[in-house]
Formats: sequence, structure tokens, C-alpha cells
Amino acid sequence: MGIKVYGIATYNCQRVTLALLEFGVEDFELVKVYLKAGEHDAPSWTSMTPFKQVPVFECGDFHLYESRAIVRYIARKYKGQGPSLFGSTLEEQAIVDQWSEAEAYQFSFSFLPWSLEYYVGRREERPLNEGVLKPFYDKLATFFDICESQLSKTKYLAGDFYSVVDLNIAPSLLRVMTLKPELITTRKHVKRWYDSLASRPAFRKMLQADEHWAFALNPSPAEILQALPA
Amino acid sequence: MGIKVYGIATYNCQRVTLALLEFGVEDFELVKVYLKAGEHDAPSWTSMTPFKQVPVFECGDFHLYESRAIVRYIARKYKGQGPSLFGSTLEEQAIVDQWSEAEAYQFSFSFLPWSLEYYVGRREERPLNEGVLKPFYDKLATFFDICESQLSKTKYLAGDFYSVVDLNIAPSLLRVMTLKPELITTRKHVKRWYDSLASRPAFRKMLQADEHWAFALNPSPAEILQALPA
Repeated sequence: MGIKVYGIATYNCQRVTLALLEFGVEDFELVKVYLKAGEHDAPSWTSMTPFKQVPVFECGDFHLYESRAIVRYIARKYKGQGPSLFGSTLEEQAIVDQWSEAEAYQFSFSFLPWSLEYYVGRREERPLNEGVLKPFYDKLATFFDICESQLSKTKYLAGDFYSVVDLNIAPSLLRVMTLKPELITTRKHVKRWYDSLASRPAFRKMLQADEHWAFALNPSPAEILQALPA
Repeated sequence: MGIKVYGIATYNCQRVTLALLEFGVEDFELVKVYLKAGEHDAPSWTSMTPFKQVPVFECGDFHLYESRAIVRYIARKYKGQGPSLFGSTLEEQAIVDQWSEAEAYQFSFSFLPWSLEYYVGRREERPLNEGVLKPFYDKLATFFDICESQLSKTKYLAGDFYSVVDLNIAPSLLRVMTLKPELITTRKHVKRWYDSLASRPAFRKMLQADEHWAFALNPSPAEILQALPA
């Protein structure tokens, strides 16, 4: 049964390709969807994703939305073909879940408005409104301070093993590095962590896959690949 | 090793007591914490919860924050003593994860500002600012429409079994019933689902436990208990 991923080259959708590639699954089809008014409401679409969002994961008759849920599904389904992303003990699993929530709430709540402003700015061909973004930069700085403290003790965010938390945040960190690199580069342990995530082979493959998924408002995948750590 | 839960009777904290009670764990201590400036920054506090939030779960030396992560930990640790909250097959687990994300993003993003306005209104002894809240009511109505459609097909939100999704949203639904009951009562399947959640024995016990945790801005637990479905 063929795998299809409906989406576009944004960080939410990239999580899914990154997860597939971490588990050596390469025979999937990326279906580019750039939702416009009208398409959102087509019953064929809302039956797959009632909140009208991408990505959507399809495998035969089975459909799944919400990128972090799709990542967990892939990590369970292909367990043994790639890294163990959930931790081993009850306590390790709990810390993975804790940081997953922190990534979704503490990080993404501040990152999302910034990301939206970036796309709207590109579309309207104007510079970012830095005044609007200032409070979000401040919140992200706090988030990265807490990460710095954590990463001074552990190799990855939820422990000494690469987990769903690191995978889920990696495509977003790439955007932070493009727009406001000092949030990462001024923090020694965060920088070391970012480099370790961005230099994973699956991460490069994810960006190569994006060539089929790119849309005009993103920087070009080739340009991004060039800037990655070796 | 004694269990302590640091918090206050808000929906985020109630999730944790509800989870413990669903698994028959009744020998825990609720430690009331009503964070004020200063306390937030005490190292004894930030070492347990760097984002300075409640609840915090403590069991011996092990500390955990983020309520949904705590619920998952409890459900794994006491597996067999209560309901199976994650689903059985890979696909069931995935749908539980999908709805968990939908609860956290689609529901909570709209519910949180409303909840904050409620507490600020109580503190300032003024009525809710309905104009500010209108867009959130609209988003919640859309969320409940999607739930209604789902619940016309399944008994609970992620399938025919009670899962972490239902447990996590239950304390918030109680507040919706207090503030804007028509969001629930005008939708037949949502109402049936709410009644089934609120009439669970553990849910009543959670409200009884709140007597030790109550704070002045909440309606009284006794009052709420009275209004529950039989």
C-alpha cells in the first residue's frame, strides 16, 4: 500500500518526511496541497482532515492528520528500522512526553506567529514587522535559555537519546537559523544540539525531498542545504 | 514513595487528580500552589518546573511537569488498575494521538483565552468581556461541530473506548458547561459524551478532592457537584 503525504514544504509537513526518512522509508509520494478558499471545504478533503490542515498521511484506507501524531505513528510502525524515539523506561517515556508538550506549547505558541508573519511578509513583499515580533523573540529566548540549561546536562532535549522531541522541533530550528540565528548561535549547547540535528543524513534527505514540495514563499531547498553544518 | 501533586483547582491540574483516581490511586497529597511574583523564581521551584507552571507531579526524586505528559505517565505506570487509555492497535494509538493534538491545539488554543478572561473577570469583580470572547466562542463552536460529527460515529472522541483525549478534555468541558452550556447542550452527541464523562465515579472524586485545592476565584466544588449529571 503506497504512502502519500499531502502537504507543502513547511515545518509541520517536513516533520512527516523527516520521520519517514529516519526509518529508511523512501517510497512515499508527496502530494502538494496549497489550500485556497473553496478547496478547504471540499468533502473529499474535510473527510480526511476536518480541521482543514496539512499534513495528511495516507496509507491505503488509513488517514491521519496532526503532524506530531503522524510522527509517533511512523516511529511505532517502523520500530526497529531506525532510532528508538520514545525512551525505554517509564520515566524516560514520561520525560519525552513532557518535552513534547513543551515543544508544542512553549516553543510553538511563540514560533507560530513569527512564522505566519514571515510568510505574510514574503507574500506582500515587505520586510518583517519587527515590532510585532519582539515579544515572541523574548519568549523564544526564554525557551532557548531553558534548553541551554537542559542541554548542558543531556545530549538531546529529553535525554541522551534522539527522540520525537528533537525530530519534531528540527524543521522549525532550521527556520530560526535563517531568520534569527543568534537565538541559537549565542547558546553553546543549543548550537551543538542544532548542529547534531541538522547534520543527520535524514535531515538532508528531507530537504532534497522538498524540491518536489517547495512553494514560492520558502527559501530554496538548495540554498538551505548549502548552509547546513557538514 | 508518596505522591505529591503541586497545583490548584484549575482544569490543567484537575487532569492529574482525575487520572490518579481513574486508576484507583487515592493516597496522594495535593499541595496548593498559587504562584505569585517571587515564588516563580525560587530555584527550588524552577528546578522542578523551569517554565514555572503548575501542575508538578512528584514521586520520590522523580518530578514531571506538563499535565498531559503526567496523565500519560500515570496511565502507563498503573496500567491494569484502570481503563486502557491509549488504544490497542497501531491505528487506534495513532487516532488517540491525533485527537490529543486536536484537543491541545484546536480546543485549548481557543479555550485558554476564555478561561483567562474568566479568572481576570472574577478577580476584578466585573462581568466577562463578551466582545473579546466572541471569536473564541466561534472557534469552539467549530470544534464542537467536528466533535459532533465524530461522536455520531464513535462513543468517545478517539473511538469506542475512553482514552487520554476524553480524560484530558473533561475538566475543561465542565467549565464550558458552567459558562456557555449551549456549546454542549445544543449538540446531541456532544451532550451524550459530556454526560458520560462527567458521570464517571473518578470525575466526582476529582471534584471532592478539589475541596483541599480550591481557590477563591473558582466556583465552589460542592456547587459544581450538585450540577453534575446523575
